[in-house]
Order: sequence, then C-alpha cells, then structure tokens
Amino acid sequence: MKSGMKINFKHIAIIGVGLIGGSFAMALKKQGFKGRITGLGRKKENLIKAKKLGVIDDYSTDYAEGIKDADLVLLAVPVGQFERIVKSIRGSMKKGAIVTDVGSVKAQIVKKIGPLMPEGVHFVGAHPIAGKECSGISCASADLFKNARCIITPGLKTNKAALNKIVRLWKNVGSRTLFMSPEEHDLIFAAVSHLPHVAAYSLVNSIMKLDDNILHHGGKGLRDMTRIALSPSELWRDICAYNKKNILKTLKKLSSSIAHITKLIETSDWTALEKEFRKAKEARQILESD
Amino acid sequence: MKSGMKINFKHIAIIGVGLIGGSFAMALKKQGFKGRITGLGRKKENLIKAKKLGVIDDYSTDYAEGIKDADLVLLAVPVGQFERIVKSIRGSMKKGAIVTDVGSVKAQIVKKIGPLMPEGVHFVGAHPIAGKECSGISCASADLFKNARCIITPGLKTNKAALNKIVRLWKNVGSRTLFMSPEEHDLIFAAVSHLPHVAAYSLVNSIMKLDDNILHHGGKGLRDMTRIALSPSELWRDICAYNKKNILKTLKKLSSSIAHITKLIETSDWTALEKEFRKAKEARQILESD
Repeated sequence: MKSGMKINFKHIAIIGVGLIGGSFAMALKKQGFKGRITGLGRKKENLIKAKKLGVIDDYSTDYAEGIKDADLVLLAVPVGQFERIVKSIRGSMKKGAIVTDVGSVKAQIVKKIGPLMPEGVHFVGAHPIAGKECSGISCASADLFKNARCIITPGLKTNKAALNKIVRLWKNVGSRTLFMSPEEHDLIFAAVSHLPHVAAYSLVNSIMKLDDNILHHGGKGLRDMTRIALSPSELWRDICAYNKKNILKTLKKLSSSIAHITKLIETSDWTALEKEFRKAKEARQILESD
Repeated sequence: MKSGMKINFKHIAIIGVGLIGGSFAMALKKQGFKGRITGLGRKKENLIKAKKLGVIDDYSTDYAEGIKDADLVLLAVPVGQFERIVKSIRGSMKKGAIVTDVGSVKAQIVKKIGPLMPEGVHFVGAHPIAGKECSGISCASADLFKNARCIITPGLKTNKAALNKIVRLWKNVGSRTLFMSPEEHDLIFAAVSHLPHVAAYSLVNSIMKLDDNILHHGGKGLRDMTRIALSPSELWRDICAYNKKNILKTLKKLSSSIAHITKLIETSDWTALEKEFRKAKEARQILESD
C-alpha cells in the first residue's frame, strides 16, 4: 500500500499552480493520491498547461467557485496576495475544510489569515523549505519536497486535528516536518533565507553600479553566490513587507559586519581581518554536514 | 601526438604544492609532459604525499636549491609570500628561466616581483580562474584548468618570448587565455571575486552575531551563497592587502546598495524595492549563459 493512501483529503484546491503548488500536486499524485486536485490561478494558459501535464485534474480562474467543494485549500501564491484571496473565498468554504499555505513568512500570515476563517474552517501555517530560483509549473517536480524540511507553525488557537492532518500531508510528500512558533520561524528565516536573498540582489546591483561591463567576468563563486538573485522579485518584495522588522534587524547586522571588515582593510589590520575570515570559515562548516 | 609535447620547459619548479600548484603538475603530466617537476614547500609531509601521488618527481624544502636548475618557476603560495620567497631564490635562478604565478591579484605583484628578476630571468603574471573552497593537494585535479579562463597580465616591460611561452603553457593544460593589464584585472576581480568572498565571510559572521544557533537552519540557498567562506582565510587576507584600494571601492558600492535597500524597506517603498530586486535579477541572467 502506497503511503498516499493515508492522505485525509478528497478534494484539494491549489491556489497558484507554479513551482511550489505544481510540485505539491505532482508529489501527491506520485504518492498515489486518488482524490481530485483543482488548480486555481489568474492565468488560464498556465492552468491549461498544468492540466495537460496531468498535474491537476481540473481548473478555474474563479477562486470561490473552485474551492467550494474542497476539503483542503493550499495557498501557493506570493504572501502579499493571501489576505485578498482569503477574503474573496471565505464565504464559499465548505465546513470542515482546512486552509494551509506555503509562505516564507509566518507571523503576520497566521495573525491575519487565522481570524478570517469562517466557523468550522481551520487555518494551519506551513513553510516547505524547498525553493528553486526557477519559477513556474515547468520547473515543478514530484520530488521537490523529498527529504526537505517543512516548518509547521501552529499558533495558540490552531485546531489540533487540522494540525495533525497537515503534518501527515507533508510527511506523505516526503518532507521532514518541524514545529516552530510563527515568530521563531520569522526570525530564523530572516537570517538564513531572507537576508541572503536581499544580499544577493544587493551584490549584483553593486557590481553593476561599479561598471555594468564587469559582471560577466564572474566565475563559479559569483554564480553560486548570486543564484538566488534569480528568484522572483515580486515574491521577495512581499516577503520583505511581511517580515520587515526581522529583515531590518538582520540587515543591520550585515551592514555592521561589512563596516567592520571595511575598517580593518582601511587600517591595514591584517591580523584582525584574518581572524574575522577564519571565524566565518569555521562557523560555515556546520552547513557542510547536512 | 599529445599537445603536451609543445611545452617548452624541461624542469619546472612549483612553489606551493596545494590545490592550484598540485593541479598544475597533474595537468602537465596528463598532457604528456616528460620533463621534471620539483615540488617546493614548507611542509615536508605534504611534499612526500605529493610525490607518492605521482604529482611531482622530487621535492625540497630549500627553495633556492630546488629552483636552481629550473627553467620555469611557478609561484603557487598565497600572494603575501611572493616577495620574501623571490628575494630568497633570485640569486640562484638559472639564466633564461621564467618566473610566473597564479595569484588572484596582479598590479602590486607585477610591480614588486618584476623588478626583482635578475638579468636574463623574466617574470610573467598570470591568474587561472579555477578555485575551489577545498584546499590542499588532496583537492587537486588534473582537469582543474580545463576550459577555465587564465588571465595573463603582461606589463609594459614583459619579455615577449617569455609571455608567449606562458600563454602556450596555460593553453596546454586546457585553459582559455585572456590578456588584461594588471590594473584592469585587479578592478574586475575585486568586483567579481574579492568582494563576493568578503561578503560571504561577512554574511556568515552577521548571522552568527544575531544568534549563534541559527546558521544551521540554512538551506541550499545559504549553502551556495556562503560556500566561498570556506576558502583559506590567510589567502583572502593577503588578497585584501594586495588589492586594498579596489576592494574598498567595491565594498563602498555594496554598503551603499545595502543601505539603499534598507531605506526602501524602512519606508515601506515596496514598488521601488521590487524594481531594485528586478534590476538585479535581470542583470544576473548574464551569468547563466556561460
């Protein structure tokens, strides 16, 4: 018996059939999910493509219509669109349905989206750590969540039964689930994901500003370091808006670390500079053991 | 006939048998080089290891002794050691010998090392763009320079015949050779290599400063972005010292780019922020076509 048989949903509506939403549908089908998957989105041609690829069973551009029979609604669009979308579908949700998401920020989402749920509908926040720089359905893959972490962020009021179903769902697509409070999640991911993205965009722009004919000389080091600058700008704008306080906190740390190193170079304090580099090199080892 | 038959040297001395020096020896042997390769270094056990691996034919910890019959001397230690080493071997060099290097900075090297050459010995600066974060002979590979660029940086006084031999040498190990002035090289590589290294060290340190229990949460994005922070700290200290002016110039651009983005987030100017991100994303595409 495939592990997918344990999936407690019959009709899943995915809002945003891109890299994450599409991969989620593909992973479910690979695990033997026999229910119906409805894809919802603004662009009809994308939905037609997803259906042709067998990723979804049917689709609609009318969100309220598309979710009305669903017992699970997955929000897989940039976080800035969540509130508007949830307000437009809440009147049509089936009693007992669960709403979940894949957003990279959690505190404001849990705070804003949770209270919008109608009686008998529950929201559970989640964040699968499985991005790619390439976006859209053509980058989706059934194995995207395999062995990846999925952070589940219950709040104080989160319904336990709904929470368990969401945990099982992510385990079924191969993820290792972890619990964090929404606030803890947002600080940690501001540091290890949001800050690096902002820094990558910044690094590219600063090289371009120096001379726009220099960037192409970059080798593997620069390519690896700036790969995440290929991520969708709209998505990262929203993440900055929704995790503003934490991102500003991490940006302050980065600025002062750069200012400190600049000072050491200016004053030719090579001993202290090497110590600074060595400290980073030693700390960085931890990411090699993963 | 192997292309290696064209190599115009009979005895090559490599000072520093690590990742780059070791890979160079391996590449030469793979190309059919039939001459002698002497490995020179401070650590005898490393040289013994290199000989056992067949990377070098013999070795010495006495540089002046080791180079005295060589018609090519390759400097493959951190750039901060060049001057001291060259001063210690210049009295023993064979007339007609060529000295070259693999250092990541060029203007100060060409300026300092060139004039130290005794009558009849020529210096040609070079920089193969083929690093790895992992260092030492155990990371060396015969294919490290294959299809990699090698920047040759002749000065006004560089001997033409010596220059041609060095170009042919790098072509023989599979590199694509490019000419740049030492100054042009140093500005370009400050931007596309030195700045990213400093930024990677900085990023790790700033995350550690926020909370030293956060870094391990990092995923593929952070791993890729900070991989170059695993590079030897001594090497990068030297590069900062030898390319101080240019690196400070690029660090200034990075600081102001980060300050600008910080301001946009602080003032919630999401439209301008997205534009900033999109600009970087579009510019970054150029590194994908390589």
